[in-house]
Amino acid sequence: MEKTNVIAHFMGFPGKLKDKVMEIIKKTMKIGKDDPRKIWHAAKVGLALTLVSLFYYFRPLYDGFGQSAIWAVLTVVVVFEFTAGATLSKCLNRGFATLLAGALGVGAKYFADLFGKGEPIVLGFLVFTLGAVGTFTRFFPHMKRKYDYGILIFVLTFSLVTVSGYRVDEILELAHQRLTTILVGAATCMIISLVVCPVWAGEDLHKLVCGNLDKLASFLEGFGSEYFSFSEMDEESEKASIKDKGFLQAYKTVLNSKAIEESLANFAWWEPGHGSFRLRHPWKQYLKIGVLARECACHFQALTSYFNSNPQAPTEFHKRIEEACTRMSLESSKALKELASSIKTITQPSSSAAETHLQNSRIAIDDFKAILATTKTSLLSNKLDLLEIFPAITVASILIDVINCVDKISAAVEE
Amino acid sequence: MEKTNVIAHFMGFPGKLKDKVMEIIKKTMKIGKDDPRKIWHAAKVGLALTLVSLFYYFRPLYDGFGQSAIWAVLTVVVVFEFTAGATLSKCLNRGFATLLAGALGVGAKYFADLFGKGEPIVLGFLVFTLGAVGTFTRFFPHMKRKYDYGILIFVLTFSLVTVSGYRVDEILELAHQRLTTILVGAATCMIISLVVCPVWAGEDLHKLVCGNLDKLASFLEGFGSEYFSFSEMDEESEKASIKDKGFLQAYKTVLNSKAIEESLANFAWWEPGHGSFRLRHPWKQYLKIGVLARECACHFQALTSYFNSNPQAPTEFHKRIEEACTRMSLESSKALKELASSIKTITQPSSSAAETHLQNSRIAIDDFKAILATTKTSLLSNKLDLLEIFPAITVASILIDVINCVDKISAAVEE
Repeated sequence: MEKTNVIAHFMGFPGKLKDKVMEIIKKTMKIGKDDPRKIWHAAKVGLALTLVSLFYYFRPLYDGFGQSAIWAVLTVVVVFEFTAGATLSKCLNRGFATLLAGALGVGAKYFADLFGKGEPIVLGFLVFTLGAVGTFTRFFPHMKRKYDYGILIFVLTFSLVTVSGYRVDEILELAHQRLTTILVGAATCMIISLVVCPVWAGEDLHKLVCGNLDKLASFLEGFGSEYFSFSEMDEESEKASIKDKGFLQAYKTVLNSKAIEESLANFAWWEPGHGSFRLRHPWKQYLKIGVLARECACHFQALTSYFNSNPQAPTEFHKRIEEACTRMSLESSKALKELASSIKTITQPSSSAAETHLQNSRIAIDDFKAILATTKTSLLSNKLDLLEIFPAITVASILIDVINCVDKISAAVEE
Repeated sequence: MEKTNVIAHFMGFPGKLKDKVMEIIKKTMKIGKDDPRKIWHAAKVGLALTLVSLFYYFRPLYDGFGQSAIWAVLTVVVVFEFTAGATLSKCLNRGFATLLAGALGVGAKYFADLFGKGEPIVLGFLVFTLGAVGTFTRFFPHMKRKYDYGILIFVLTFSLVTVSGYRVDEILELAHQRLTTILVGAATCMIISLVVCPVWAGEDLHKLVCGNLDKLASFLEGFGSEYFSFSEMDEESEKASIKDKGFLQAYKTVLNSKAIEESLANFAWWEPGHGSFRLRHPWKQYLKIGVLARECACHFQALTSYFNSNPQAPTEFHKRIEEACTRMSLESSKALKELASSIKTITQPSSSAAETHLQNSRIAIDDFKAILATTKTSLLSNKLDLLEIFPAITVASILIDVINCVDKISAAVEE
C-alpha cells in the first residue's frame, strides 16, 4: 500500500510539474497583459547588463580598467529600477555618495598614516563612528525619503576605502578606476531608462490619482440605483451580486493607495520634465488629493454596510427620498468626474462644470432636508416608523458627508 | 545696500549654522528618546563593520583571503537591517542566491567554452536572458514579498561570474573565497542582530496591533462624553479642543498602518521563536485583525464629522439617547480593551470578559432602538423636529456599525 503510494506520488510528479509550469505561464501572461511595460523593463535590464559586459569582451577596454569593470555590472543590477525616477534617484545617490565617501576615505587614510603603528586602531574607530552615524542618519524621515540609498553607499564606500590595505597612491588609481566604471554603469542605466520606453513615476502618480477619483465617481454613480433597488433577492445572492459589480468594490483599492502614492511622488521629484509635466510639477498636491480621496473612500466603506439593510419593499419614506438621494449621489459623481478629467488634462478645472454639479448636489441636500421636515405628518398619521427609516436617514447623512468631502477635493484640485 | 546685505548674510551664517546644528541635535534626541533601539542599531552596525574589518588588520587572515575580504564589508553594510527578521531574510537570501548563481555561472562558463570563438556571444545571450527573466520574476507578488533581494543577488552574482574574464579553475578558487567572506559577513550580522539587543519584527507587529486596538478603544471611551458635552464653545475653540484631545486623533495612525504591518509580518516570518512567540506564530492573523481595525477606524472618521453638528443645548431627544449611546461606546471600548489585552498576553481571550461587554453593548443597541420606537410620541406632540435629531441618529447608527466591527475583531482574535 505504502509502496504504491510512493510510486503514485512519483508518477504524478510530471503532471504536477506541468500544472505548476502552466500556472507560472498564466501568471506571467497576466502580468504582461496588465502592464506590458513590465516586460519591457525586464528586457531593458537585460540590455543594460549585456552592454556593460561589453567592457569585458572588448580587450582594449578591459586592459584599461581591469577587474574594476565588474563594478559597472554591479551598479547596473543594483541601480536599475522600474520607474525612471527611481533609477535616476539611485544613480545620482550612488554617484555622489561614492565620490564624497571616496574622497573622505582617502583623507582618513592620510590622517591615520600620521599615527604610525596606531593606524588600525584609528581606522577602526573612524569606521565604527561613520558606520554608526550614517546608519542613524537613515532614521531621519527626510533623509530616508530622498537619500537613503546614498547614505548606504556612502558608508559602504568609506569602509571599503579605509579598510582595504592598499597604500595611498594605489588607492587613488583604484578609486579613479572604480568611480569611472560606476559612472559608466550608472550612465548606461540612466540613458536606457530615460530613452527606451521610459516609465515615468510622475505619469503613474498622475494616472493613479485620476483613476482613484474615477473609481470614487463610479461608486457614487452606481450607488443610488443600487441602494434603491428593492429586488427580492435573499441576502446571500445580494452579496454575490455586489461582488459582481466591480465598481462597488473598486473604492477599496483607493483606501490602500497611500504607500504607493507616496513612493511615486518621491521618485517623481527626481524626474526631468516630460510630456506635459514641468520639472518642478507640484507632486505634493497629488498627495493632498490622495488623502482626501481616501477620506471619501472611508465614507463609502461606511455606506456599504447599508446595502442589505433595506426592507424587501420600499416604504413610502424610501419613495420620497429616493429622488433627492439619487440626485445627491449622481451629481457628486459627475462633479468628481469633472475634477478627474480636469486633472487628466492638467487644466484649471473649468470651474463652471464641477462647481455646477456640486451646486446641484447641494440643492439636492436642501430638498432632502425639506422632505425630512415634512415627514412628521406621515409619522403622525402612523404611516411609518422611525425605526424603519433609520438606516435610510443614515445613508443620506453619509452621502452629505461625501459631498462635503468632494467639495474639499475640488478645492484641492483647483490649487 | 547690496553689499551690506551680502555682508549681513555672511555674518548671519554662523548663527544659522548653529541653529541648524541645534535643530539636528534636537531631532536626534527625539528619535533616540522615542525609540532607543535605533541608537543601539546604529552602534550594532558600527560594531559589525569594525569586527569584519579585522579581516584586514589581521595579516594571516588577510593573506588567506586577499582582496575578496572586501566582500565581507560590503555584505555587512548592505545586509544589516533594523529588525532581526529583515537581517535574517537578507542574509539567507544573499547566501543561497550567491551559492546558486555561482554554481550556475561556473556551469555557464563551461558551456560557453564549448563554442570556442563564439564564447562572448553565448555568454552575452545568457546574461541577457537571466537578467531579463530574473528582473521579471521580481514582479510576481509572492516572489517580491519574500525573495526580492535574493533574486537581485542571483542576477548580480551570475553576471559577475560569467562576465569576468577568468579561466574556470581560477574562478572556482575565487568563488570559494568570495562565498566564504560573504558567509563571514552574513554570520557576523546575524549573530550581532540576534544576540545584541535584538529588535524582533514579530514583537513590533504584536505591539503595533495591540496598540492600534487600544487606540480604537480610547477613542470610543472618550467619544460618548465628548459628543454629548454641550459646552458653549464656538466652532473654532471646539476644533482646538478636539486637537488637544490626542485620543480622538490617534485613530488616524491606525488608518495608515497597513504598509508597516505588512512589512513587519513579512520579516516576522523569517524570525526564529523568541519570547512567547513560537517559530510558526500565525503572523497572518495579525494582518486580518489589522484590516478590521482599519475598517473600524474608517467608521471613526465618519463619526468625527459630527462633533460640531450638535445644537448649543441638548434637545430632549439627545437627553433620551445619551445614556444608551454612551453605554454603546463605553461597552464596545471595554470589549476592545479586553481583546487587546488578550492579544498582549497571547491567551485565548477569556471569552467571558470581551463577550460580556459586547453583549452589554448589544443590549444598549436594543435600548436605543426601543427609544427610537417611542420617540414618535414626542414628534407628535411637536416637541422635536426630525431635522434636528437627524445627526444624532446617524451617530448612533455608525456606532452600531462600529460594534458590529468590534464583533468581527473579536472573532478574528479568537482564531
